[in-house]
Amino acid sequence: MKTRAAVAFAEKQPLEIVELDLEGPKDGEVLVEIMATGICHTDAYTLGGFDSEGIFPVVLGHEGAGIVREVGKGVTSVKAGDHVIPLYTPECRQCKSCLSGKTNLCTAIRETQGRGVMPDGTTRFSYKGQLIYHYMGCSTFSNFTVLPEIAVAKIREDAPFKAACYCGCGVSTGVGAVINTAKVEAGANVVVFGLGGIGLNVIQAARMVGADKIIGVDTNDSKAEWGRRFGMTDFVNPNKIDEDIVPHLLRLTEGGADYTFDCTGNTDVMRQALEACHRGWGVSVVIGVAEAGKEISTRPFQLVTGRVWKGSAFGGVKGRTGVPKIVDWYMKGKIEIDPMITHILSLEEINKAFDLMHEGKSIRSVVLF
Amino acid sequence: MKTRAAVAFAEKQPLEIVELDLEGPKDGEVLVEIMATGICHTDAYTLGGFDSEGIFPVVLGHEGAGIVREVGKGVTSVKAGDHVIPLYTPECRQCKSCLSGKTNLCTAIRETQGRGVMPDGTTRFSYKGQLIYHYMGCSTFSNFTVLPEIAVAKIREDAPFKAACYCGCGVSTGVGAVINTAKVEAGANVVVFGLGGIGLNVIQAARMVGADKIIGVDTNDSKAEWGRRFGMTDFVNPNKIDEDIVPHLLRLTEGGADYTFDCTGNTDVMRQALEACHRGWGVSVVIGVAEAGKEISTRPFQLVTGRVWKGSAFGGVKGRTGVPKIVDWYMKGKIEIDPMITHILSLEEINKAFDLMHEGKSIRSVVLF
Repeated sequence: MKTRAAVAFAEKQPLEIVELDLEGPKDGEVLVEIMATGICHTDAYTLGGFDSEGIFPVVLGHEGAGIVREVGKGVTSVKAGDHVIPLYTPECRQCKSCLSGKTNLCTAIRETQGRGVMPDGTTRFSYKGQLIYHYMGCSTFSNFTVLPEIAVAKIREDAPFKAACYCGCGVSTGVGAVINTAKVEAGANVVVFGLGGIGLNVIQAARMVGADKIIGVDTNDSKAEWGRRFGMTDFVNPNKIDEDIVPHLLRLTEGGADYTFDCTGNTDVMRQALEACHRGWGVSVVIGVAEAGKEISTRPFQLVTGRVWKGSAFGGVKGRTGVPKIVDWYMKGKIEIDPMITHILSLEEINKAFDLMHEGKSIRSVVLF
Repeated sequence: MKTRAAVAFAEKQPLEIVELDLEGPKDGEVLVEIMATGICHTDAYTLGGFDSEGIFPVVLGHEGAGIVREVGKGVTSVKAGDHVIPLYTPECRQCKSCLSGKTNLCTAIRETQGRGVMPDGTTRFSYKGQLIYHYMGCSTFSNFTVLPEIAVAKIREDAPFKAACYCGCGVSTGVGAVINTAKVEAGANVVVFGLGGIGLNVIQAARMVGADKIIGVDTNDSKAEWGRRFGMTDFVNPNKIDEDIVPHLLRLTEGGADYTFDCTGNTDVMRQALEACHRGWGVSVVIGVAEAGKEISTRPFQLVTGRVWKGSAFGGVKGRTGVPKIVDWYMKGKIEIDPMITHILSLEEINKAFDLMHEGKSIRSVVLF
């Protein structure tokens, strides 16, 4: 079949909208019509050539929502017509990781996914006979895409695609980090570093679970309003205080935060986030993806005196089990998504989404097919 | 009153055995006759001048056991005749830390303890009119010492002092790190870096809770026999393998350890301990005290993919509540202490204990009064 898609033929080049050939689903695979896709920093990271494992030509995009149109042999958990979210972190329910009950990091198809191919080692996309690679096992910048059955989460049909797609990455990452990784409890004090999309989702999840103080930290004052919109109680611009950020936050939280979250990807900030935790029990969660080669450091005394340093990928959310719940929370009004969708674009306008992101003008741009 | 004590008049000097003047207990304090004291690396660290906050002249020693001989006004939880262990980590049950239920790091008397004085700001020891400071709120290198009521744990009277004193630091630190900090469960795979006294106590606690693989790592082959004695199942000398220690341990544990413990104080080893953890859930606990100024580092990816970095002070043991339990476990044979007490000395021989430690010839030397 044919599908319209935005293809990255090479790094640092604008995406090209072309018609690709798409092979139908093989055993254990499903064909999904993508109805909406978000454009995430990770897509920009790969397109910008920063991902040493980036493979081209490729159909980027990993934050989508759509409808199953066809299923391959052996597929039992979804059928044509089901609404689904593609999962770059699948959930096979059979690997050591899934069976451990301790992590969402399913390893069933990690190796082929990293090589830009389907689990059988081949790609389904081609352009004039040339192979086009898959991206993060999703490739949602295509109107139709093929996914392994274990990499789709079935969601309720009344959820609008435009909001649901954001649950395929940003919302789940931020909300899940609060719920699954940190397990923030009512009454806790929370500090969130970086008020981009992830940070805002951390803030609203902290509000949802009843956190007391929710302090946002950003060097850009214009983010304060966004933070307050989702539950932030205090804002700190580290460039506009008369002392270092860590002692400032320790005072503001009367000894340190119960939980801190790095949503910046900056390793210096990750250290501040750890050290702003309360002695004895503070937990710091690294969410941001750091530049290649950068390392985090601290004095071991910080850990010995009771602070905990952990991290979160896809918010610790088990895709097929957890993503439908997050969509549900959105539909019930427990979390908000609509105000974060700042730009709706057509596929032809997709390069504009990258520009908006680089200029810091969007929280989330979504392409509707 | 008078008390025989080993006094450190200055750093890097042998201790001198002298008779000190000791003021009796004031309000909320108790006079304890120390019956036995262990000699710990931390004493050597301070005596060696490595502790930038070390104060001299001082009565060192923080790992003792003895009998209450007199109590000051208002003391209700212990009485003359009670057997007790002095606590360098007290438990006031009233400060924010104690009431949090999340940490053992009571802050009630931290400030005066750090300055080598009792909570009222004065010292009880003097020598020919010269003030002598307290150490870690304990000063167990003295036949008699004065302690705040909140800094003594009452223990069962049938526990021999010679073994009980080791619960005042080493045993509780190692056993507690497994029980309280890591919460190791039956069937887990554990790696212990450094097979000194702390490492051996980590090993025997891992055995107690039913860990499967208990891998000991040490550059000194002679430690292997000690490790096996307490439950180690595998030994690795990093200098005698053909690859780096981390990939070696990942293979040995089929993907990484569930829990790792650094008992070396070496920040490079702390990093190895984190990176030898299993992706998705491995927890690494820093126990060792690092050299001043040294930092730990890793790639944030290690945390984002599910490893947790934490630390432990006094094994997360709440002193008055937890130490009596550990003594109990010893009396019931759930943990062993006797084989670790390699040398029994008199107070006059105390400098020999430091020599034995520096030469790596002792697990634990104990002075009996």
